[in-house]
Amino acid sequence: VSSGVDRTVFCVSDHTGLTAETFAHSLLTRFPGVAPHYETRPFVDTVEKVEQVVDEIDAVAALGPRPIVFSTVSEAALLSRLERANGLVLSMFGAFVEELAREFRVEPSQVVGAYHGMRDTALYQVRLDAVDFALTTDDGLGLEHYRDAEVIVLGVSRVGKTPTSLYLAMQYGIRAANYPLTLDGKQGPGLPPAVAGFQDRLHGLTIDPIRLYQIRQKRRPDSAYASLERCAEDVERVERMFRAERIPVTDTTARSIEEIAATIIEGSHLIRHLD
Amino acid sequence: VSSGVDRTVFCVSDHTGLTAETFAHSLLTRFPGVAPHYETRPFVDTVEKVEQVVDEIDAVAALGPRPIVFSTVSEAALLSRLERANGLVLSMFGAFVEELAREFRVEPSQVVGAYHGMRDTALYQVRLDAVDFALTTDDGLGLEHYRDAEVIVLGVSRVGKTPTSLYLAMQYGIRAANYPLTLDGKQGPGLPPAVAGFQDRLHGLTIDPIRLYQIRQKRRPDSAYASLERCAEDVERVERMFRAERIPVTDTTARSIEEIAATIIEGSHLIRHLD
Repeated sequence: VSSGVDRTVFCVSDHTGLTAETFAHSLLTRFPGVAPHYETRPFVDTVEKVEQVVDEIDAVAALGPRPIVFSTVSEAALLSRLERANGLVLSMFGAFVEELAREFRVEPSQVVGAYHGMRDTALYQVRLDAVDFALTTDDGLGLEHYRDAEVIVLGVSRVGKTPTSLYLAMQYGIRAANYPLTLDGKQGPGLPPAVAGFQDRLHGLTIDPIRLYQIRQKRRPDSAYASLERCAEDVERVERMFRAERIPVTDTTARSIEEIAATIIEGSHLIRHLD
Repeated sequence: VSSGVDRTVFCVSDHTGLTAETFAHSLLTRFPGVAPHYETRPFVDTVEKVEQVVDEIDAVAALGPRPIVFSTVSEAALLSRLERANGLVLSMFGAFVEELAREFRVEPSQVVGAYHGMRDTALYQVRLDAVDFALTTDDGLGLEHYRDAEVIVLGVSRVGKTPTSLYLAMQYGIRAANYPLTLDGKQGPGLPPAVAGFQDRLHGLTIDPIRLYQIRQKRRPDSAYASLERCAEDVERVERMFRAERIPVTDTTARSIEEIAATIIEGSHLIRHLD
């Protein structure tokens, strides 16, 4: 459902394809007139597999505008074969590998294809432990683990606490708990007792009441919980509390998960565990 | 804990920094002799913020080798200021924006900084729904939703089913359920009844028994569950079942979450929801 001009975009990689996808998506959002249709081809690491992808690219090109091809294929012989395809082939690593090889005084021929060493294993464990932590402390569970949290995400029901906490864990290895603000009258005006001792690591989420209404209607149509009045009241109350308690706040309304996560990290000065 | 030469790597972006991080990480793993120390600077979209990052880069450069700077800053005035920093500044979008602008017949000046339209909102909802689905159908829960699964991940305890399912949901909007294989004698040799009707969408995970032993020992030290004998037996039994039932299998042992996900998508012919 897009008004842009359709264009097929191949992400071709000798590894997972994730880097090519992330790069292509980020770059193509800058061309709102184009509606990309993505095709990822991972683990393309033999001549046979390259030939197959070239055939696919050529088949698309025969029926319309030539595809855009984002490539992170590193082996020169494979890349040069790919570049003969009937598409705009953008080799994303090419120039950068050479510049970095000069900087690090390594012969380009010594640059490995896709290295995975112990560092990656250690990082993997940090991320898995963080995902476990997010699940253990999701939605007000596991309060006894809150002292190990790097951030405790607060917000009303359906504001996006769970996916945000999981993304912080998965992508950045950050231990993120989340706690629901119910505000149903049982809760006083101040911080809930469960999180009152952790003021330095609280982060609030808020949302446009109309967007919240749409989300809650999908969940429980025509309930009091999903009424516009209740949504507006919930949001107003938590925003008042966030201000009173000086809790940093992120608005999730028009943001992707990546953007929400990056804003929380920025606003709460969290550390990304990337290496 | 790395034997490489330390080097500070700045990922500077006018947006989340995710693309610069993914790109830098992917590229630098090809230089195993270098131990990168990452510093992400997101939302750098004013002259003042660029000046601040330049000061940080220069401060690092004054104490050792110059930093590597991966930039996705798009505004020319900001980028040219950043390029005067005392680092190896790699502008990742520069050349590609120009090539794509020519291809799409757009004036480069009309290329927007970081566009977000309705397509992103729709994708966001697909991913949130998929995360909800993964949580609802985690570890054998919510069997009544299995008919809506795009893939059902099978495997023994601690093989990595939950983070894999969540990653497939979060990154690719794929509805992934997961089901534990207990193999404690109660279960017969064939497929568990709960998943027997979904043979076309099953995907098995396996792991090196020694790695499984290490993971389980961390979880429940010195238990029968975590013994090497039990780990070896669990793995052998499920592998035999996967073979007998012709279920595609991914080995999680030396793979990152990204790699496990990409291998499952490839092996089970799943569709990435990227646009």
